[in-house]
Amino acid sequence: MKVALTVGDFLRRGAAVYGGRPAVFDEPGTPGSLGTVSYRELESRARGMAIALDELGVAHGERVAIVSPNAARFMISFFGVSGYGRILVPVNYRLNADEIRYIVDHSGASVLLVDPESADALHDVPAKHKIVLDGVADAELFAEAAPGSEPAAWPGDEDATASINYTSGTTARPKGVQLTHRNCWLNAATFGWHTAVSDRDVYLHTLPMFHCNGWGMPYAVTAMGVPQVVQRKVDGAEILRRIDGYGVTLMCGAPAVVAAILSAAELRREAGQPIPGAGRLRIVVAGAPPPSKTIERIETELGWEFIQIYGLTETAPLLTINRAPAEWDGIPAAERAKLQSRAGVPAVGVQLRTGADGEVLARSNVVFEGYWQQGDESAAALAGGWFHTGDKGHVEAGDYLVISDRKKDVIISGGENISSVEVEDCLYQHPAVAEVAVIGVPDQKWGETVKALVVLRDGADVTDGDLIAFCRERLAHFKCPSSVEVRDGLPRTATGKLQKFRLRAPYWEGYQRRVN
Amino acid sequence: MKVALTVGDFLRRGAAVYGGRPAVFDEPGTPGSLGTVSYRELESRARGMAIALDELGVAHGERVAIVSPNAARFMISFFGVSGYGRILVPVNYRLNADEIRYIVDHSGASVLLVDPESADALHDVPAKHKIVLDGVADAELFAEAAPGSEPAAWPGDEDATASINYTSGTTARPKGVQLTHRNCWLNAATFGWHTAVSDRDVYLHTLPMFHCNGWGMPYAVTAMGVPQVVQRKVDGAEILRRIDGYGVTLMCGAPAVVAAILSAAELRREAGQPIPGAGRLRIVVAGAPPPSKTIERIETELGWEFIQIYGLTETAPLLTINRAPAEWDGIPAAERAKLQSRAGVPAVGVQLRTGADGEVLARSNVVFEGYWQQGDESAAALAGGWFHTGDKGHVEAGDYLVISDRKKDVIISGGENISSVEVEDCLYQHPAVAEVAVIGVPDQKWGETVKALVVLRDGADVTDGDLIAFCRERLAHFKCPSSVEVRDGLPRTATGKLQKFRLRAPYWEGYQRRVN
Repeated sequence: MKVALTVGDFLRRGAAVYGGRPAVFDEPGTPGSLGTVSYRELESRARGMAIALDELGVAHGERVAIVSPNAARFMISFFGVSGYGRILVPVNYRLNADEIRYIVDHSGASVLLVDPESADALHDVPAKHKIVLDGVADAELFAEAAPGSEPAAWPGDEDATASINYTSGTTARPKGVQLTHRNCWLNAATFGWHTAVSDRDVYLHTLPMFHCNGWGMPYAVTAMGVPQVVQRKVDGAEILRRIDGYGVTLMCGAPAVVAAILSAAELRREAGQPIPGAGRLRIVVAGAPPPSKTIERIETELGWEFIQIYGLTETAPLLTINRAPAEWDGIPAAERAKLQSRAGVPAVGVQLRTGADGEVLARSNVVFEGYWQQGDESAAALAGGWFHTGDKGHVEAGDYLVISDRKKDVIISGGENISSVEVEDCLYQHPAVAEVAVIGVPDQKWGETVKALVVLRDGADVTDGDLIAFCRERLAHFKCPSSVEVRDGLPRTATGKLQKFRLRAPYWEGYQRRVN
Repeated sequence: MKVALTVGDFLRRGAAVYGGRPAVFDEPGTPGSLGTVSYRELESRARGMAIALDELGVAHGERVAIVSPNAARFMISFFGVSGYGRILVPVNYRLNADEIRYIVDHSGASVLLVDPESADALHDVPAKHKIVLDGVADAELFAEAAPGSEPAAWPGDEDATASINYTSGTTARPKGVQLTHRNCWLNAATFGWHTAVSDRDVYLHTLPMFHCNGWGMPYAVTAMGVPQVVQRKVDGAEILRRIDGYGVTLMCGAPAVVAAILSAAELRREAGQPIPGAGRLRIVVAGAPPPSKTIERIETELGWEFIQIYGLTETAPLLTINRAPAEWDGIPAAERAKLQSRAGVPAVGVQLRTGADGEVLARSNVVFEGYWQQGDESAAALAGGWFHTGDKGHVEAGDYLVISDRKKDVIISGGENISSVEVEDCLYQHPAVAEVAVIGVPDQKWGETVKALVVLRDGADVTDGDLIAFCRERLAHFKCPSSVEVRDGLPRTATGKLQKFRLRAPYWEGYQRRVN
């Protein structure tokens, strides 16, 4: 018997088996906070949302965009939208209005859900149905379904698109990564298996839900009836308080979150307060692995289990996992941390190989369907039946993947992809700029940070601060250079192509990798 | 991207990531025991087997039957046969020659692999290629592949049949349950997830591998590089010795295995020896749940975690799982054991409902494709898009399924399905028998045992022992009645159908369920 694998499976089980359990502890103090939402209520609200979308005339297959930090309403939307045949478009709320307008327009979203804090900034972004998530305007959309009421039947199709997640690539404009229900389902199951998600867990949402659907972890933990604590903003001290207060056992985050936690833990220790979660908490980190010293500190100072994963939005995302096997138990912490600072081994159902130029290629059911309405880009990314990650790497003994460099011109800062080209395009619009190269340089807190190397026009009179401010008016702030250096010229190949590896080299001296 | 889910995925990962680890500790002292087989060697031998099958002219899609207790060669066959596009037919080695002949013939197996202990008994069972697993005749079939050599390419198809597992149903002849690669893959992933199989486990094969492919656990543990201890025969004391010697953390078994372990543990305790596995071992039990007192003893006397599952060969098998949630932690052991003695909650991806007559119906990707060459039986079993389990049950709060009775006329003794009709057919061949009804009655050790209620012909002169001996000449011994009662008549409906529930009732007084 074949039954379509759809993300609705996860909430159906969570609600049926764990109905009375808390599903989501919404961020307190936000407008219209839903407080504690039980699994029964989460299901009822998701179903209610699907019914409300029916009533708005939003057909199956239509796109519903959401611009919001982590919130109970985001969790409801994962299931209320995707679970009933529509396509969720989770948008990075840190993008600026123009960027979000582009995504809403490009995805053809007929519904745009906006967090109150973004409402003013997005005032001029048009959408057929634009609804502010303030607990008032959206009251009907997020109400529980009347008992027994059902939305229009969706037959279920595992090859249907569940979400389109826009990501910055090598081009100036973000691309819409189409993840199918099958992608999401199998990612959730293998991720849940590898990280041993069970109904004894308590999950903390530190990872943004918009980011590759929170890596699919919201699906996995929902299937197991795991209570989920919403954290709207990353704040190390607050993370520790919630770990303590809710008995958190599992969380995911970018390296920047880890850095914030370690700083907060330091303060706690100085104040003689205990670190919560010791001996029980697993923290899953992706993006670039943190320095091995950081891994060592997590395990020795916090007493948490560190798990490294590697993947991309295009891979739903789980490609590899590095969870220390028993063989490493006797190894001294510092040496062990070095073994843990590698991308990891292929997850169940993932095949990896490296191409001729060292590019990491992946073949798996977690690999996306294509970029929304970008046939050429999709064909290039999936050429030969393998997904081209754009990362360079090599495989060490025991099938451990190590990512050594990025082939694509992307900077990853605080877990966010930033297109160098996009930032360069912006700076080229400034009248003082003759030439520019934007590169990622190592940064203690963010992994990498954006640096612009600029050649000025003759007679131009402009400061670093002017150029940074110019960018901040036009781009999301996290994309803007944190430093600018003026150069006399930039090295190019014979064909005129920028030799970025030469520009990056001096900043990465003493590092094992050319990415962070 | 869609990639066929095939069982080969599991060994590919096991060998790539955990190549140097022991995969299988073969039963020592058996003819041609392979000793300790590493994951690299397991993969190489499985690939070698596929190459040998190529050379024998066994095409993709052809059936390879295996009659063997647990053995390293059985593990190799799961992957060497199914992993490369052929269909494995694991046969219950406790069946007699006629029964096995029927299965080999019905499945059209071109290869028949026979354990040395069964070789004499199966001397007259014909097969195109009949190979005894003695380490000599089968040397080529189970040799490691030459470095770099590859079998004929199999493109991989998740809808292809991976195995045909013959099971006794309501009819006299066993039916061949066709499990697809998708069935097996998703069962392994959800089973592995729910039982938290990880690379820190050590698995003991107490469950027969022929039995629904060892419930698919061999696939799941192989994916995670788990060392697997082969146990050829169930022996409580030996099980405890191996748990101790190998550091076993996970095992599966029928209730009869549990009973054997508890007896052996009792002797250990009396001898002042410690019980191994306390605080680390999880034991997964299916078939009928053991009495709650047994569950309590496993958790309190052995210190093992008890996990109950429910399923059938037709469901690959995982339908429900009962693993105590945190909510039960404070409950007194006896009361808690009662909660644990229920079939459990639906596994991820399983939908259950009860039909009008209380029959449990299942809809899931773990539900089989159909019975091999039995179109009518298949259509009936899958009528309306739901699998008809033949078990009666009800659902309690928290979505807990409780199996209360068996709709189909099947007795489950020591984890084996026994068709009442088949035993009745046999007894009807005895000249002294006028009428017969075969039922299951409760049994401390086996869960249920077979009882024959017989009406004799006028003037017949036959003892209980004669009738049992008559059966033992014709049927596998585990199917034969352990007791016979002579009656004057048997209750029938107006249409002449036996009213078995009335016959069973007196034996089940004081039991909550009508099945064990």
